[in-house]
Amino acid sequence: MQTVVPPLIFPDEGFTLDISHSGVCVEKLQELQSAIERAHRAMKAFERGDIANTEDGTSVTHVADRLRYEQSPVFADINDFFQRLRRGKFSGATGRPFAYVIINGIGGCLLGATMLHQALRGAYWNEKDKFERDNYPRLYFLDNNDPAGFADLLEIVDLDRTLVVTVSRSGNSQETLNNVAALEAAFAAVEIDFSKHACAITTDDSELDRLANRNHWLRIWLMTPTIGSRFSVTSVAGHLAAAATGLDFGLFLDGARTMDEWTRERDVTANPAYLLAATWHILGEGRGDKSMVIVPYSDRLPGFTRYLQHLVMESVGKYQDRQGNMVCQGLTVYGHKGSTDTHAYIQQLQEGRNDFFVTFIEVLQDRMPYNLANNLTMGEHLHAFLGGLMLSLYARDRGIVSITFERLNERTLGMLVALYERAVAVYAELIDVNAYNQPGVKAYKRISRNVNEINHALQQFIRDNQGFRGTAADVARAVGLGDWEEEVDGMLAKFAVNLRSFNGVRIVRELQGRRWRYTITS
Amino acid sequence: MQTVVPPLIFPDEGFTLDISHSGVCVEKLQELQSAIERAHRAMKAFERGDIANTEDGTSVTHVADRLRYEQSPVFADINDFFQRLRRGKFSGATGRPFAYVIINGIGGCLLGATMLHQALRGAYWNEKDKFERDNYPRLYFLDNNDPAGFADLLEIVDLDRTLVVTVSRSGNSQETLNNVAALEAAFAAVEIDFSKHACAITTDDSELDRLANRNHWLRIWLMTPTIGSRFSVTSVAGHLAAAATGLDFGLFLDGARTMDEWTRERDVTANPAYLLAATWHILGEGRGDKSMVIVPYSDRLPGFTRYLQHLVMESVGKYQDRQGNMVCQGLTVYGHKGSTDTHAYIQQLQEGRNDFFVTFIEVLQDRMPYNLANNLTMGEHLHAFLGGLMLSLYARDRGIVSITFERLNERTLGMLVALYERAVAVYAELIDVNAYNQPGVKAYKRISRNVNEINHALQQFIRDNQGFRGTAADVARAVGLGDWEEEVDGMLAKFAVNLRSFNGVRIVRELQGRRWRYTITS
Repeated sequence: MQTVVPPLIFPDEGFTLDISHSGVCVEKLQELQSAIERAHRAMKAFERGDIANTEDGTSVTHVADRLRYEQSPVFADINDFFQRLRRGKFSGATGRPFAYVIINGIGGCLLGATMLHQALRGAYWNEKDKFERDNYPRLYFLDNNDPAGFADLLEIVDLDRTLVVTVSRSGNSQETLNNVAALEAAFAAVEIDFSKHACAITTDDSELDRLANRNHWLRIWLMTPTIGSRFSVTSVAGHLAAAATGLDFGLFLDGARTMDEWTRERDVTANPAYLLAATWHILGEGRGDKSMVIVPYSDRLPGFTRYLQHLVMESVGKYQDRQGNMVCQGLTVYGHKGSTDTHAYIQQLQEGRNDFFVTFIEVLQDRMPYNLANNLTMGEHLHAFLGGLMLSLYARDRGIVSITFERLNERTLGMLVALYERAVAVYAELIDVNAYNQPGVKAYKRISRNVNEINHALQQFIRDNQGFRGTAADVARAVGLGDWEEEVDGMLAKFAVNLRSFNGVRIVRELQGRRWRYTITS
Repeated sequence: MQTVVPPLIFPDEGFTLDISHSGVCVEKLQELQSAIERAHRAMKAFERGDIANTEDGTSVTHVADRLRYEQSPVFADINDFFQRLRRGKFSGATGRPFAYVIINGIGGCLLGATMLHQALRGAYWNEKDKFERDNYPRLYFLDNNDPAGFADLLEIVDLDRTLVVTVSRSGNSQETLNNVAALEAAFAAVEIDFSKHACAITTDDSELDRLANRNHWLRIWLMTPTIGSRFSVTSVAGHLAAAATGLDFGLFLDGARTMDEWTRERDVTANPAYLLAATWHILGEGRGDKSMVIVPYSDRLPGFTRYLQHLVMESVGKYQDRQGNMVCQGLTVYGHKGSTDTHAYIQQLQEGRNDFFVTFIEVLQDRMPYNLANNLTMGEHLHAFLGGLMLSLYARDRGIVSITFERLNERTLGMLVALYERAVAVYAELIDVNAYNQPGVKAYKRISRNVNEINHALQQFIRDNQGFRGTAADVARAVGLGDWEEEVDGMLAKFAVNLRSFNGVRIVRELQGRRWRYTITS
């Protein structure tokens, strides 16, 4: 017997979660009942402040802090700061008011801020003139360490009117600190004091905090250390992006708190977060065997898909469960937006491997009533494309989860964020993993530092061995890095192609057979 | 015994494919030898013009046309058109020269054009002033039917200076034609004749072709019908985006032809396309059991990841093989860019489910030599982040494929495109599916039309039944659509939330228990 789970509708904004086409029925939910009960107790303990991040031995407070944050001096100061900025009351070292804001960071803090900005300000904010922007600044996100992207950005901002806000919870993300150094140099090159253009958002006494203090940056806004960066969009990290363009962050928090209230419900069929987590668990057999494809039918929400990819995969993609068993868990998330995606990869979803379920997100209210032929609006067409895809996937036994709400605004976006944050936490309980650490990220950071040490050793070797000629293997042996031949080859290639000069000495390469031969020359 | 496959290096641009960390060895390639031989013969037949799209019974000519196209009058005309446009020689209905170009389309034509533009012009082309743009127009991509995205775009272009180029191979993509209708209305609303602002790229005698002819649009550039839209970036569809901003499309074609030449090689270990396809086949057991995660270490290439997702998934995600066996094939592609992704979902790749392999793409040349502390450049740091991730994933037995080349430009991008086009074609041969059709897309289109018919029936019902009150089930029964209750509910929700009025009559909704109750009112 398979009893259909009816749609769960919240009157506020008509927020609806519908799993009736997912393949999950009431009976299957009942099988999961005791696990859900356990997760429910864990969520209560979580909200009480019990230790949730078992690696760090700390509580996790992004939910509790949604209320506290709005009443904090930091909340008031960020709003005030950008209101003054937009009135021209803040100016940089040359006395010109700020018109560009760069948010520099990487990971959860940036993904959340980017998602929020794109969802509520659209793709073209920076192309509007200042009247259309209501005097709020242009807003850019610097989220990598690629000289190409960095140069692209520097080409279009006026540094003397640019404020840089560097966001890093840990305060030691290498990419982010590298960008600070590169920005300092770029400002110095035009003889502007960077510290008069810089703010920081980080935890107390972090490397970034100390740097900002030492250099007397304009502002340091402190983050709560018990909020992980992928859960930080309802904290100061998200607030920054919202306040910079005049969005009402209080409404965003209010939406999140509304969803928190709703998702404290004990009954799985009345709690959308529990229902989502249970659906993920049932469809993927508790191992993530089905990928989660996210298709918002909205040009404003592709950023939400990427935000969710991070939130889910970094939280549940873990080697060990909390008992120390090797589990290699995960729940793969990908997607972009509809109806665009139907003309991209949906062919495979429709006909090919049945190794996924789709989550559709629909916003009912159209921004404009564009009337097309036959008295159908563009929004009604979009709705029909969504309906057509949903039914045709369902006819092929693909699992469908559907989320609908009336309007996209600060409040509903806050609801959506809080829904998924809670669903991830509950899913992590169901599979017994720590949702709040990211140990896998440490390994690559350590080896990246090794590669930088190889770089230094090679620079020294090049300086000292003018006239040397040989393969990467020869160089690796000569510098005592015989086990790192490929890394030596890669770094020498970087040096050669970029014409790097070390005290006037360079390295060039030429292909001989299937190997590069390097020559050190001046 | 496992003999490592050495990196395959092409002297031209140092283009390198390295599968030595993928887990694929020479012995495994040998097991695939006879299948590769068959694929090699099929590729020869393909290039000779034998029938390749067995559904349509046509040959597929995107490779052959790379040479023909450059010598065609269309090639010359598109270049000439945009050179004249940038010199102000083309103006719209009001006499003002064009300064904005919107490319309207969806699917492969748009993904290819967007990828090309982003890779070679960066993320901020439209924010540059006209001197920085060398008088070339701003360029926008309209790839959906969302009123939000459409309104966002209309807010920032000046219609009297806007040229719209509508691209649709089939000429009947509903989203694209809807945008034409909405644009016509938007131009009409400001009393501008749209046809003086419109060009088309489509196949001869398509619906779009007839529409453009009937309305005397400025230009109709014809596409070759034997080039599928996901293989169209080296055709007129890609050329348009390149020519609009002054890129050298001849170089792009030259790069693609160079790669075509290289990938005609018979020996799998000397042919990068065969090596790629064989690697996908071996790692995924010929069923796509491992997803392909694409991580270009470049801010310019996230669009390439999305382009590839489409190219691969729509080509190989098929229900039947060419013998008619049910195979439900597929090869899932996702990813964005590095080092950003290491702080997004890489935790799961590093520690969680081992159900993927990663393809890294590295561009050796840095756009700028930003020097950071300890005499390391930003580009060297990026290289170290890549190296660190590669080694730490490899240490965990994750499969790694690595593509490296010296410079990102028209030529190397053409090489990259042609490499993957050929690899997809060869992989499709290995698993015996038709790479050139997309039957799964048809199902959803048909049902979408049904939803539009429901819309019409409901409009009629609302007009005729003022005072009616009931649930969606009641309405569905009343209009004889009892099997379509959910679709009726969805469409009534659209009407209610958008305050749709039909001859002054509206429908409103209120939640009663877990169901919406609708009332028709005036």
